[in-house]
Amino acid sequence: MALATRLENLGTETAFAVSLAAAEWAARGNRIFPFHLGDMNLPTPQNIVDAMNKAIVDGKTGYCPAAGIPALRAALADDIGGRRGMSLGPENIVVQPGGKPVITKFIQTLMNPGDGVLYPTPGYPIYESQVDYFGGRPLPYGYRETPTGFAIDLNQVRQLAESGARAIIYNDLQNPLGCESGRAEREAIADLAIEHDLWVLSDEAYFEMRYSGSSTSIASLPGMAERTVVLYTYSKKFAMTGWRLGCAAAPVAVAEMIAKLNTNNESCTTHFVQEAGVEALRDPSGAAPLLAELERRRDAAIDGIGGIPGMTCAKPDATFYLFPNVTEAMAMTGHTDVGDFATAALHETGVSFCTRRHFGRPQEGETEQYIRFAYSGIDVDDITEGLDQLATWIGAR
Amino acid sequence: MALATRLENLGTETAFAVSLAAAEWAARGNRIFPFHLGDMNLPTPQNIVDAMNKAIVDGKTGYCPAAGIPALRAALADDIGGRRGMSLGPENIVVQPGGKPVITKFIQTLMNPGDGVLYPTPGYPIYESQVDYFGGRPLPYGYRETPTGFAIDLNQVRQLAESGARAIIYNDLQNPLGCESGRAEREAIADLAIEHDLWVLSDEAYFEMRYSGSSTSIASLPGMAERTVVLYTYSKKFAMTGWRLGCAAAPVAVAEMIAKLNTNNESCTTHFVQEAGVEALRDPSGAAPLLAELERRRDAAIDGIGGIPGMTCAKPDATFYLFPNVTEAMAMTGHTDVGDFATAALHETGVSFCTRRHFGRPQEGETEQYIRFAYSGIDVDDITEGLDQLATWIGAR
Repeated sequence: MALATRLENLGTETAFAVSLAAAEWAARGNRIFPFHLGDMNLPTPQNIVDAMNKAIVDGKTGYCPAAGIPALRAALADDIGGRRGMSLGPENIVVQPGGKPVITKFIQTLMNPGDGVLYPTPGYPIYESQVDYFGGRPLPYGYRETPTGFAIDLNQVRQLAESGARAIIYNDLQNPLGCESGRAEREAIADLAIEHDLWVLSDEAYFEMRYSGSSTSIASLPGMAERTVVLYTYSKKFAMTGWRLGCAAAPVAVAEMIAKLNTNNESCTTHFVQEAGVEALRDPSGAAPLLAELERRRDAAIDGIGGIPGMTCAKPDATFYLFPNVTEAMAMTGHTDVGDFATAALHETGVSFCTRRHFGRPQEGETEQYIRFAYSGIDVDDITEGLDQLATWIGAR
Repeated sequence: MALATRLENLGTETAFAVSLAAAEWAARGNRIFPFHLGDMNLPTPQNIVDAMNKAIVDGKTGYCPAAGIPALRAALADDIGGRRGMSLGPENIVVQPGGKPVITKFIQTLMNPGDGVLYPTPGYPIYESQVDYFGGRPLPYGYRETPTGFAIDLNQVRQLAESGARAIIYNDLQNPLGCESGRAEREAIADLAIEHDLWVLSDEAYFEMRYSGSSTSIASLPGMAERTVVLYTYSKKFAMTGWRLGCAAAPVAVAEMIAKLNTNNESCTTHFVQEAGVEALRDPSGAAPLLAELERRRDAAIDGIGGIPGMTCAKPDATFYLFPNVTEAMAMTGHTDVGDFATAALHETGVSFCTRRHFGRPQEGETEQYIRFAYSGIDVDDITEGLDQLATWIGAR
């Protein structure tokens, strides 16, 4: 009795294999420096937990509307719209059990089998997985390294858009690269989306995870609101990754269809968690200390990488990821395979990280080697100590 | 810019329209007797809430494995297996945000486009919606009314299975009918599944919601475990509908694929809610008072229906649904359309209920008229008063 054939096209997050390898190495009595997963080892602000408990006492343990409770949809419309200079109403908001469900629901709602969908690689691997799974034509676009980070290969985006695409997935404030678009790059993407009449998924998971400067949503540019679905999540700002709370902010016709998928897939997002989400937006004061801690970690990580021979990395203003170029470090340690390099680093130093390979299929002609450090789940002292170990190991070769 | 064409095949739960009509009628100052939704107006046992809060204090606010936390998978394997006389391990269990996600994940994992899938109608409408949405060939099977409830039309099931089916959805302890299979009927379904090599989704949402007798899972019959996915949910037994916690219990190869869908769709089920789920199984003592209250409501509802002219209903031992035949009551009130009858009942008496129409496409040759009373969300006194109002209204015609 065979399984369904569509599963042959279903990808996954191979980063979990890195977690497993780290856990196995730790189980053998080794110390681990966990730079591999984008999870957070910080507590959710107490006012949010308290609001959840009040909601339970108030009997908010039953079903609620598939699109979300009215108070949360209204609060999210105000918050998301306000921060982007957009006019959003509750009818644009569909609450989700996390940010991730927006990816599959965007694809299901807006892509027909055979349609081309542009998405970034390196990029969050679920983009590619869902395009493939629902029978789309994958159109991966790449980045090139610059002195200050990474820039989208706009020529490639233009060529791919001209090949007949229906949608583009755009992750300004990028995982795993840690980079963000400048104004010109963002506008170029918007212009191409309008010119080729593309739907846009704007993954804004890290929109508020920044240490200086300010974020701009592509959805707020002229002609974009009506073609853009914004992915919003509570996971990062409020250290709520395991709570599973997020939403899609979308044109009404799209929002209604996403809500219909909610009815089919999971009925609703956990009722009292939604009430907690209202409180988080009402009093977001717990977010600032979390961000300050992440900034200390970023600085420690950048300092640490600066001391590692053969490893270079720009200092991003946003996200909690660093994507150092390790081409030379690999040569120094005698590695030609970035997976082997990661395994050796784990076994020699306890430092665990993902590599470029965990973030979508490679582009043709990629020659440089990269790894990803996530600093959201590791304290400053451990960041410093782990990266020192790595520097010592590489420097000794 | 059109939406994706697959959405044309996506159904929904039209019962929500009944909620909306009731809410609108209430908003105009009318009293409502809510028999329409299968939600519960009873509190979740306190030990479960306490365990959740302890988990939050313990930092269980981050991501956890896509298939569920190991402690919950182990506890569910013991509990589900133990109650069914089956040998299940953690590797058979994939935690879900509710029972409902098991339906779409069963379809995605085991049905190819064009494959025939048998499912009950009247039945839970998401079965039909998901078969249609993923391009299956819908093979609805029906029931006939008996002196003690409803019986599956086994001749029809046999004919449909012989037409070349790949799977059957079976909902022993049935929503909306309130009925359950006897041994012979259950064995006949199992025999057909084996004979025609069908995958089986056994929706066991109401397996433990019974007032006398005992439940038997079709998965426990010889030759069935390897072809059956059991849908389990916390929603009913522990009054946790809005918590969104359930699981699939499945053969390992299927469980692994369902977990891969979890990784793509929602990452994981809310971490601390899973910890609460461990406690619920460790100390399930809060479930008995909930069941006792539901039994009182069932008795009050059966008594009430007994006093309504032109309405007949068997007394089920399980679920919290009643599916009275209202053919004569409709004739007495001058209605030929069951939707009009429901609207008139709402406006004349405040009694709100779903009809047969909300539970899948009609079978050919259906002549009798039915409505569904759910008594999980309405207290005994309101059950009695509401059904009295209904009796008075119908009797006056």
